[in-house]
Amino acid sequence: MNPDKLKIAILGGTGNIGEGMVLRLALQNLMTDGVKNEVIIGSRSRETADEAAKQALSVLENCGFDTSKIIITGNTNLEAAKVAELIILTIRFDHVLPLLDESREALENKILVTPVVPMAKEGNLFIYKPPAEGSAALAIQKKVPESTKVVAAFHNIPAGKLKDIVKCKAVHDAIVCSDDAEAKKLVMELARNMGCLRPLDGGPLNQASTMESLTPLLINLAKLNELKDLGMNFS
Amino acid sequence: MNPDKLKIAILGGTGNIGEGMVLRLALQNLMTDGVKNEVIIGSRSRETADEAAKQALSVLENCGFDTSKIIITGNTNLEAAKVAELIILTIRFDHVLPLLDESREALENKILVTPVVPMAKEGNLFIYKPPAEGSAALAIQKKVPESTKVVAAFHNIPAGKLKDIVKCKAVHDAIVCSDDAEAKKLVMELARNMGCLRPLDGGPLNQASTMESLTPLLINLAKLNELKDLGMNFS
Repeated sequence: MNPDKLKIAILGGTGNIGEGMVLRLALQNLMTDGVKNEVIIGSRSRETADEAAKQALSVLENCGFDTSKIIITGNTNLEAAKVAELIILTIRFDHVLPLLDESREALENKILVTPVVPMAKEGNLFIYKPPAEGSAALAIQKKVPESTKVVAAFHNIPAGKLKDIVKCKAVHDAIVCSDDAEAKKLVMELARNMGCLRPLDGGPLNQASTMESLTPLLINLAKLNELKDLGMNFS
Repeated sequence: MNPDKLKIAILGGTGNIGEGMVLRLALQNLMTDGVKNEVIIGSRSRETADEAAKQALSVLENCGFDTSKIIITGNTNLEAAKVAELIILTIRFDHVLPLLDESREALENKILVTPVVPMAKEGNLFIYKPPAEGSAALAIQKKVPESTKVVAAFHNIPAGKLKDIVKCKAVHDAIVCSDDAEAKKLVMELARNMGCLRPLDGGPLNQASTMESLTPLLINLAKLNELKDLGMNFS
């Protein structure tokens, strides 16, 4: 696996957070010397994914970027997972486990990145609802082949700022957890190259529950304090 | 209860975080017009508490503050709780519940602030270890009289910066949770007047588990990323 020439699948990449991830990951080819990543948007329907890929390329073009060095394609979640070396799951928790079953073979020896947050609405606020394993990350690890390197990251990235590739210069902290040191390092590098994130080592995968629980906290803080699109910084 | 003329007990106030709380709360009388708080340091031994009170006053004097408008005294945890209107528990979780039993009567109609974090060391990192109730805050609420207003706050305040009353100008976010709107508002105001905190409404008390879990996260992030005395900001 060459960290500068990665095939990255963003499953559920047509969603809110997926959209910004696609743009920021594709832009690495222009921003960082030597990086030649390929971004594959996964979706339940190939047509939707194709459309999202075209849309992302046109956003980048309209912003004045040279898209000749950028590769964004679309495919079904399963096909995207098959060709990718690194897979990012921007999918709701209740849809994740069935998808992992379906794409089990495609996950062998891959890096699987989970920003997945199991949460529920209680009144007008959200609460964290981890599965019995303790976190979505640990439930996902239990489900995938032993050779799959699970990395928890990108839970707490404000979607609006991520998408706003021209105006948003804010840099938020992105905590990354994994039991695989090499995979963690690679994902931290990927985060750093996104231009709007400072990666922080969050330790092993069993630490992911706290990171997951921060997402409902951010949503609640925004709602209760009339703030918007909150990210976090540690200093 | 007059929010500008509060008797505040800091139980376990001779500890690391207690020390900074005492100084910052006492300084409100100089910093904020009309505030005339009284700070009572609680400890297991009255002598230790007395000594800590003298020490705090001498720290303030040495920093050039006019201590004639500042009241800091020391007492046993129980006596401190009796005279105070607002009680802050800067005490380890395993010592909190027995202390609450012992001082049950003294807690009637009081505001009880919990920055308590149940955590354990696992390898070289900390993990959050909430009790069966879901959080220290909910376990505390279960233990105290119905008339006691429990507020969760001050979990994630870096002790070194809190103590550094002269040099530290950093302002970190302090999330405050409670089921009692008035008590929450009062504690948020107290936090704002400390000069180094921006209070944020964190919702009802059942949201406290996430805030509690942030303390081991901050300690782990500092250790893993060679950072120090970390606080948080949301933006």
